[in-house]
Amino acid sequence: MPEANPVCERLAIVGLGLIGSSIARGARQYGLARSIVAIDRDPAVIERVQALGLADEATGEAEGVAGADLVILCVPVGAVGAVAEAMAPHLKPGAIVSDVGSVKASVVAAVSPHLPEGVHFVPAHPVAGTEYSGPDAGFSTLFSGRWCILTPPEGTDKAATARVQAFWEGLGAIVESMTPEHHDLVLAITSHVPHLIAYNIVGTAADLEAVTQSEVIKFSAGGFRDFTRIAASDPTMWRDVFLTNKDAVLEMLGRFNEDLAALARAIRWGDGDALFDLFTRTRAIRRGIVALGQETAEADFGRSRTPPEPAKDEPVSGR
Amino acid sequence: MPEANPVCERLAIVGLGLIGSSIARGARQYGLARSIVAIDRDPAVIERVQALGLADEATGEAEGVAGADLVILCVPVGAVGAVAEAMAPHLKPGAIVSDVGSVKASVVAAVSPHLPEGVHFVPAHPVAGTEYSGPDAGFSTLFSGRWCILTPPEGTDKAATARVQAFWEGLGAIVESMTPEHHDLVLAITSHVPHLIAYNIVGTAADLEAVTQSEVIKFSAGGFRDFTRIAASDPTMWRDVFLTNKDAVLEMLGRFNEDLAALARAIRWGDGDALFDLFTRTRAIRRGIVALGQETAEADFGRSRTPPEPAKDEPVSGR
Repeated sequence: MPEANPVCERLAIVGLGLIGSSIARGARQYGLARSIVAIDRDPAVIERVQALGLADEATGEAEGVAGADLVILCVPVGAVGAVAEAMAPHLKPGAIVSDVGSVKASVVAAVSPHLPEGVHFVPAHPVAGTEYSGPDAGFSTLFSGRWCILTPPEGTDKAATARVQAFWEGLGAIVESMTPEHHDLVLAITSHVPHLIAYNIVGTAADLEAVTQSEVIKFSAGGFRDFTRIAASDPTMWRDVFLTNKDAVLEMLGRFNEDLAALARAIRWGDGDALFDLFTRTRAIRRGIVALGQETAEADFGRSRTPPEPAKDEPVSGR
Repeated sequence: MPEANPVCERLAIVGLGLIGSSIARGARQYGLARSIVAIDRDPAVIERVQALGLADEATGEAEGVAGADLVILCVPVGAVGAVAEAMAPHLKPGAIVSDVGSVKASVVAAVSPHLPEGVHFVPAHPVAGTEYSGPDAGFSTLFSGRWCILTPPEGTDKAATARVQAFWEGLGAIVESMTPEHHDLVLAITSHVPHLIAYNIVGTAADLEAVTQSEVIKFSAGGFRDFTRIAASDPTMWRDVFLTNKDAVLEMLGRFNEDLAALARAIRWGDGDALFDLFTRTRAIRRGIVALGQETAEADFGRSRTPPEPAKDEPVSGR
């Protein structure tokens, strides 16, 4: 493979869901590993991995990590501790263990104690995903142009961190490092609380008596449908996120609630200027996200495909 | 124009923003009116309307409605009363007046008193839009496959209601009727509260001290960016929506807050089952929205375009 630039010899991916299977596809496509072993406790997933040809080997056993120089845990954050414990005895000396968890402090606390001397742990979080789950949902370009955050604990081997960075850059990601605590605070507001309020409003709408579910669905194009996308994300993954990033989520949620109470008060008392000021301020943030290539500038996310409009000089009255 | 099937002779559109200019484009493209007059108090908008060739005539004067048999008000709901008053003396007997406001009870109360005997008022609300504003943002297919809700007051002329329905069906919309009060309740949960919490979380994120705005923007792909789209909607329109649908919005917001408090409590006390149950329940609603053609089934709204994956029987190591 001429263009191949392997970052590791043997890559072990534990958990072949949306993220794990996207890593497998990307590692293959960009030649980041000489061989890939897929490990998943679910026999149905192993079957799909084999049918899709996502790895050179696929197994349900933790022993599968034997001989791997890079092991990436792609399981829900509530499960990483148990998975690390099960695979620890089989890890090769000098191996690098990483993960993709949306929470970092709790992952460091859960994984580190199980890893033998001489094995390097470099926690990572690729900030990317879709509302779909499972090995069929992944694709090789999921991480392209997205940020991947590394949170190496104090004293982590620099060479190990550099290799994990090279791996993610090989998948097209932009790598940045910060402490696990800061990561958990940043993601609480950019990802966790947004998911929580999306799940919440979809639940609120589903429970109304005065408005039928069929009305909620029919008239969802007024804004509601946008929230249903992230409210369709994997329930196990998200349950674990909220249970393991409790403090940061509750802190950010508290701020969200204070601001929402002020907005409700502005509505009740007819303070149009307060509403107008906020509604104007928020436009700038989206412009920044679009400018940074983290969002499409297409209207309505490009959902409403528009045919070419008749130009001025063409006859345009009816047709 | 052979395929043309005019629903009216002379169509007057008052307010040429996203919605008004989309109606003008659609009416042209589908031949729904023999002539179109565009009325907007902003000279810059009139200039764009002329440059884009969106209407046969364009004026800043309320007198522009003279001779029109169908007049559609496409101004913010806080302005419809004053606009109706200004144009009332110029309305032709038997003319039909309609609107596109996101709130209906307050629009009926604001417009009806100004309309002379023999002029029919058929309030309407097309549930469609994008985050962009102004005459350049519109497109003729904006309403295609979307619902348009009519809220004709008791005793409204049946023929007038039928013509407004035919007009919206001509634009590709699906028409449904309900009372203004029920409309305002349904839209409070499917559109108004979603916009309010989207504006709110974007504001909360912008105001954090511990997390920089550049971090919020970089890591927005974790979910936050979805909210920034509707939080980029027109500030004047949305200020008016909240001021004129106060009771329904505060009622639905109250329910949202109760449910959110229960979720926060589940997080604080580690009730994973409560979280998992909600996160599973919410998936069904999105499936319903996709099934009804109100949402794309494409992952991530189709924002992440995926290249074809290598098939199983092809060599897939590297490329």
